[in-house]
Amino acid sequence: MRVVDLIELKRDGKEIPAADIKAFVDAVVKKEVPEYQTAAFLMAVFFRGMLPDELVAYTQAMLYSGDTLSLKSLAGQYKVDKHSTGGVGDKVSLSLAPMVAACGPVIPMISGRGLGHTGGTLDKLEAIKGYRVDLSEDEIEKAIAKAGYVITGQTGSLVPADKIFYALRDVTGTVPSIELIAASIMSKKLSVGLNGLVLDVKVGSGAFMKTQERAVKLADTMISIGRAMGTDVRACITSMDQPLGVAVGNANELIEAIEMLKGNAPADYSHICYTLGTEMLAMAKRISNDDARQELEDAVKSGRALEQMRLNVAAQGGDPRVVDDYSLLTIAPHTVNVTAPRDGYLSAFNCEMVGKASCILGGGREVAGAPVDHSVGLEVLHKIGHKVIKGDSLFKVYYQDEKKCETACKMLLDSVTISEDAPKPNELVRDIRR
Amino acid sequence: MRVVDLIELKRDGKEIPAADIKAFVDAVVKKEVPEYQTAAFLMAVFFRGMLPDELVAYTQAMLYSGDTLSLKSLAGQYKVDKHSTGGVGDKVSLSLAPMVAACGPVIPMISGRGLGHTGGTLDKLEAIKGYRVDLSEDEIEKAIAKAGYVITGQTGSLVPADKIFYALRDVTGTVPSIELIAASIMSKKLSVGLNGLVLDVKVGSGAFMKTQERAVKLADTMISIGRAMGTDVRACITSMDQPLGVAVGNANELIEAIEMLKGNAPADYSHICYTLGTEMLAMAKRISNDDARQELEDAVKSGRALEQMRLNVAAQGGDPRVVDDYSLLTIAPHTVNVTAPRDGYLSAFNCEMVGKASCILGGGREVAGAPVDHSVGLEVLHKIGHKVIKGDSLFKVYYQDEKKCETACKMLLDSVTISEDAPKPNELVRDIRR
Repeated sequence: MRVVDLIELKRDGKEIPAADIKAFVDAVVKKEVPEYQTAAFLMAVFFRGMLPDELVAYTQAMLYSGDTLSLKSLAGQYKVDKHSTGGVGDKVSLSLAPMVAACGPVIPMISGRGLGHTGGTLDKLEAIKGYRVDLSEDEIEKAIAKAGYVITGQTGSLVPADKIFYALRDVTGTVPSIELIAASIMSKKLSVGLNGLVLDVKVGSGAFMKTQERAVKLADTMISIGRAMGTDVRACITSMDQPLGVAVGNANELIEAIEMLKGNAPADYSHICYTLGTEMLAMAKRISNDDARQELEDAVKSGRALEQMRLNVAAQGGDPRVVDDYSLLTIAPHTVNVTAPRDGYLSAFNCEMVGKASCILGGGREVAGAPVDHSVGLEVLHKIGHKVIKGDSLFKVYYQDEKKCETACKMLLDSVTISEDAPKPNELVRDIRR
Repeated sequence: MRVVDLIELKRDGKEIPAADIKAFVDAVVKKEVPEYQTAAFLMAVFFRGMLPDELVAYTQAMLYSGDTLSLKSLAGQYKVDKHSTGGVGDKVSLSLAPMVAACGPVIPMISGRGLGHTGGTLDKLEAIKGYRVDLSEDEIEKAIAKAGYVITGQTGSLVPADKIFYALRDVTGTVPSIELIAASIMSKKLSVGLNGLVLDVKVGSGAFMKTQERAVKLADTMISIGRAMGTDVRACITSMDQPLGVAVGNANELIEAIEMLKGNAPADYSHICYTLGTEMLAMAKRISNDDARQELEDAVKSGRALEQMRLNVAAQGGDPRVVDDYSLLTIAPHTVNVTAPRDGYLSAFNCEMVGKASCILGGGREVAGAPVDHSVGLEVLHKIGHKVIKGDSLFKVYYQDEKKCETACKMLLDSVTISEDAPKPNELVRDIRR
């Protein structure tokens, strides 16, 4: 089929045969399709969506567009992972992976770096001196053999089609297509041969999905792709109306994650870890949610989850003593508090602005590849619904550069809404889709 | 505004400020916008359409993207033109221009060549030895001074934006957008500084607009663009369910056009000429349609319209005696008839197939720039509704090459539907929009 015919089928809402979708993706990867045709196709998909068979064919073609991880030494073991659509203060992977790994399943987690206002799991881990996130397939297998899980970056040859489509979507206004988002996530996650996947689909002002309806649609779309490809998928729809936990940054988020494994985490962060972990474990071991939850609690209480993290840090090249001695991490020496300008109820956060403030302090990057200062960051001292009095501290900022700190503090002050009336309480876990 | 933001506004159905549309078109012409972004924009327009102000800004930006014809020597004279959205056997321009010019208004007609199944006015005129269709602005003014009208090709520097957008639309499935079609036509037509324009919007199986609804929408869109830009525009919605007139080809269509000026045209062709001419003249001279019609009839009866054509042929480098002596034209020496395979009513034509048959005989071209054989063509001997008996001639074919003729005859036979019941009569002029 000529590419223009394929575009026209999509434009008119007619079904494209799976074989033609596959041929199209293959041709895109081989650079045989001009980018203007790919762009027109993506915009047509934005408006028309994709039919289930089209979407599975598209995701599979992306998945097999490059190498896949076979992880042969893990054959027969249940491989499970978690994916979050991204939020501010979302350090869940750091604690969730050792918690679940401590209970049996293995976790080959391919993760990303921060860009713009969102932090990146890999950046947070790199706060540990020597921690490597560029493992080869062989190193991934060895690290999992030692620690039950691995958190590392995407190798150059995994899912090249996604890199091409993603770069084009970014400049053609076709990022927010549910189908394209679902295919992008699933092709990457399933390229490591998972048996199960739990999705944390964030919804709210600080999330990419602004409405519950779109979040549920994205979740269900990914679940159906997974099902068609033989992978168990469940999805938790969780609120991202305010930063998760207290810490936003890198080293400070890592410390909060370690504290989680010691039973000392903020309630919201802990709730998300246990909710996602329960689904992962219940799926992997085919046990009830209650039993799964119990196993996870035991793993934390017994110290096994913490030990799993020690093993992982060592396996990926870091000093495992960091888990017990935070002085091995560098924390910015200067601090300042951002205080409430008036009395009232803390009723809303602009999460994106909080994320950007951390970025401006040096904790994030505006362009891919730029270095990150792991020592800076901030603490979110109160949550939505808290009654504040003028002068109360709202944020504690850890900084290195005074100028940057000033800008960041202004943004943080702007990021909060203080109102006279108490806001309605907001459910953290909104829905679980299976 | 960044291009991606402009794409997103259009994608979301929000209004793009006129200044940003203009800057976008300018940047496209300067090749500063990657084609993938232009393609995404065009597809978003396909789905979202354009708001009236956006469309005027877009059309104006295209119009002024290159040179325009100022035609200073014609200042103060009413410049009027006709545009057809294209059909098979549509030789209307050839006779309409001299008819209207004979009554006063001047006609600077920029026309095109045939491609695919549609013939081109310029190709038909080039059946006259020496007739030039590559006139410079200076030559256009001189030709109009002599003959009141000119029919010539687009100069290289008129509306370059349209060339860029058109080429991209063709390969990205964005040709059938009403707004993009309207902007393309109007930017080209108005770049010669017209006071008035009459549109012949074809509708039916042989036309680009398949439904009355879409034809009317296109007509009204062009009328509103014209109005906003200070040009009178009227539009006739006319049927293209069968070829117009009898002749399809080049030299033979020219002869039919000359015969029209002698009062000997097929009824349908004559009807369209008078309908369009009446609108042009009524608009140009601000007279009633009845008076305009009378003036046109007088111009034909008196021989003034024919004389106008003689003057034009001479002004554009041809031998004006061709108007009286068809032996100066080359007509293919061999003929064969295509006959009815059975009794019944001629109930439908596949116009595109009839056009392609003429093309295959050598009268058209599949790729731009290829030469055309002006001598070949065909005659459509009966119209829809005619009762035929098996063996009756349906088409007369004029050919040079026996192989090509065989293929063309097969296509012509396939192009007609003969049914038992008489078809419903079909109105030729469906609507006139002002």
